[in-house]
Amino acid sequence: MPIIEMHLMTGRTVEQKRRVVAAVCEAAARALDVSPSTVRILISEHGPEEFSVAGVTAGERSESKTIK
Amino acid sequence: MPIIEMHLMTGRTVEQKRRVVAAVCEAAARALDVSPSTVRILISEHGPEEFSVAGVTAGERSESKTIK
Amino acid sequence: MPIIEMHLMTGRTVEQKRRVVAAVCEAAARALDVSPSTVRILISEHGPEEFSVAGVTAGERSESKTIK
Amino acid sequence: MPIIEMHLMTGRTVEQKRRVVAAVCEAAARALDVSPSTVRILISEHGPEEFSVAGVTAGERSESKTIK
Amino acid sequence: MPIIEMHLMTGRTVEQKRRVVAAVCEAAARALDVSPSTVRILISEHGPEEFSVAGVTAGERSESKTIK
Amino acid sequence: MPIIEMHLMTGRTVEQKRRVVAAVCEAAARALDVSPSTVRILISEHGPEEFSVAGVTAGERSESKTIK
Repeated sequence: MPIIEMHLMTGRTVEQKRRVVAAVCEAAARALDVSPSTVRILISEHGPEEFSVAGVTAGERSESKTIK
Repeated sequence: MPIIEMHLMTGRTVEQKRRVVAAVCEAAARALDVSPSTVRILISEHGPEEFSVAGVTAGERSESKTIK
Repeated sequence: MPIIEMHLMTGRTVEQKRRVVAAVCEAAARALDVSPSTVRILISEHGPEEFSVAGVTAGERSESKTIK
Repeated sequence: MPIIEMHLMTGRTVEQKRRVVAAVCEAAARALDVSPSTVRILISEHGPEEFSVAGVTAGERSESKTIK
Repeated sequence: MPIIEMHLMTGRTVEQKRRVVAAVCEAAARALDVSPSTVRILISEHGPEEFSVAGVTAGERSESKTIK
Repeated sequence: MPIIEMHLMTGRTVEQKRRVVAAVCEAAARALDVSPSTVRILISEHGPEEFSVAGVTAGERSESKTIK
């Protein structure tokens, strides 16, 4: 049944999304020894203000890099 | 406390969303014997390139159907 | 594709779980006009210290009710 | 490792998002006694038709308040 | 930042879990052209009564197969 | 409505869980200017083989540290 939710930054192209789900599905099916047809993958995209490490959003981090 | 997250394809109308949360809330509350007021439902929508089965996104699948 | 994740308190019986997924699946399929076979439901259970409202866990709340 | 997903209604400003992730990261790191650099926070936003309590979406609720 | 949550049925061995996260991490990092060190994977396990398709839990399905 | 899901490693004490949800709830409510009573927090715990960075589970990492 693997159901996989991938949280990615916004900005991936259609090509990248198709490539990543194909690669992750194949990797998961092979490693778990299940049919690829049982693997479902959801992508959830997060903008630069919707992801943070250490309490600083990606947007804030890139701003401070640009300024300095 | 039921907290329910529903992942749906984009494209549902406001009417459909209101109908599905009303129906799911009632079904869950009745089956679990809790007050409907304790049921919270979140909807997360995924575009055709953000959902895949067997490593093929919904967008890719509908393209190949159109082409053939 | 509806993929539904239900967060419940621990302690539901097998019967209750079977009943709630049957009821929620039927409600969602009917309201969204999709085949029930496309509906997948995951249950995630949370113990009394793994759910909180207003910063107070369910375990803490029931303790303070018992004490008073 | 704390990985935190916050579901919020749409409409928060960039300032609010930066403030909330800074505050939540600090609170979690301090309470769990881990380095803030290990805390990752994802924000997922939900529009008024993508969140419901008691089977009524936030959009529907605010409409009925306006009408009355 | 890819943060990946994999929902699996319970019962995978430690070896299988290590193999699947290694394979999925490599596949995601390569396809997205990011460093593997940025990829975090969470596994959430679900017992036979915590996963259902078409409103029937995995436990119920395997029972009815055994009976027939 | 903030609904917050915190993914933590297993092993936190009841005290730590109560402390972290109290602190995170207060931080979120203050930063977002909402009532604490609207904040719900779910904790999901992951064992050492259910969390990985760079394709290596926490369990595998601590083993290799012990061996060396």
